[in-house]
Amino acid sequence: MTEPAALSASALALQDPVYREAVVDLLGAIAYGEISAFERLAQDARMAPALADKAELAKMAGVELGHFERLCDHMRSLGADPIAAMEPFVVAFDAFHLRTASSDWLEGLVTAYVGDGLAADFYTEIAAFLDADTRTVIVESLRDSGHSVFVVDRVRGAIAEDHRVAGRLALWGRRLMGEALTQAQRVAADRDALTALLTGGVDRPGMDLAAIGRLFTRLTENHTQRMESLGLDA
Amino acid sequence: MTEPAALSASALALQDPVYREAVVDLLGAIAYGEISAFERLAQDARMAPALADKAELAKMAGVELGHFERLCDHMRSLGADPIAAMEPFVVAFDAFHLRTASSDWLEGLVTAYVGDGLAADFYTEIAAFLDADTRTVIVESLRDSGHSVFVVDRVRGAIAEDHRVAGRLALWGRRLMGEALTQAQRVAADRDALTALLTGGVDRPGMDLAAIGRLFTRLTENHTQRMESLGLDA
Repeated sequence: MTEPAALSASALALQDPVYREAVVDLLGAIAYGEISAFERLAQDARMAPALADKAELAKMAGVELGHFERLCDHMRSLGADPIAAMEPFVVAFDAFHLRTASSDWLEGLVTAYVGDGLAADFYTEIAAFLDADTRTVIVESLRDSGHSVFVVDRVRGAIAEDHRVAGRLALWGRRLMGEALTQAQRVAADRDALTALLTGGVDRPGMDLAAIGRLFTRLTENHTQRMESLGLDA
Repeated sequence: MTEPAALSASALALQDPVYREAVVDLLGAIAYGEISAFERLAQDARMAPALADKAELAKMAGVELGHFERLCDHMRSLGADPIAAMEPFVVAFDAFHLRTASSDWLEGLVTAYVGDGLAADFYTEIAAFLDADTRTVIVESLRDSGHSVFVVDRVRGAIAEDHRVAGRLALWGRRLMGEALTQAQRVAADRDALTALLTGGVDRPGMDLAAIGRLFTRLTENHTQRMESLGLDA
């Protein structure tokens, strides 16, 4: 750390304590999101109509857990305590999951697909403003492991069997979006360092209001596409 | 498979369809046990008193899931369908877990430690009668990943804080043992191929009644030791 010649651009950027704090905050948020998603998938696996479906959901849960562990390792490599970094996000994430607890198997699948997709899009947008090493860690931790195909197949199959399912799940998708925005707002209001990553600082470019507007447009468009791929109106 | 010269002793043993069926049965039972343990740990993680405890339980759940996936891969390599192999055990294992659902965090920890330990002992005893390849797969899938230290530390800590906890958890441990024996009996009565692994066949050595008696003595002794290491009377 004390030999400037050996420092990468990422290591240099992370020497700024304000930036480093914001990065740890962001990694903490993503990590708590992953462990929450893990718990939720494991919980929803209990509602699986068949053992093969249960195994598939358990596998998805395992992928989230793997991401969680890599994020924790990375936080430790930055000298941060992962538990302390996650704590500030417990209330908002738990509130989101409590308010969107699946009442059946299909709702759980839609949440896994639509909720994780939304989170991944959002963090990927933020990652664009970060140093290369942090960006790589984040993007890899959001990688979908091909389970989308499984969810799309199961949801479309259920709609083909009973068309009324589509209306119910479309409402569910809208509710997920609404709850996610509510909690994101709450986190943004609480965590100055984190929002500064988006809005920038004295010596760091960020987004102005128009750019944040375009970001939300992109998030909404991707959400609509995911709903459509499930056969649902957004 | 058709070149005898290249066949290992394990491959030869697995050419016997009765033996192979029994092995797949056993692997199915262990695999369903692992995915059930995964679900249970993930469920119990929700009751964790602190985020660090939750992360620890999630990690234990991840280890079970990894074992589950390796067992499924191995069953597929034997030409068996893992889902079909697990199906016969769903009712008994689900009944066990339903009847021993943890009502709090400490009960969950005791179940993870005592229940998994008991299952591991039992399957290791059976594995001694199997071909070398199958034995290796089973023993590796039962390997404890150092989380015992965590459970012992937390349970002993809770007893140190409030001595009454010990009485309640001792009862819980006895109930686990009772329920496990009930369900094991049920499985044994149902699955002839599986029990034949223990009792042997025309050309395969097995256990006589006295040996089965000694097996139960060993299982009980190990159970008592585990309870004692938690600071509990068996």
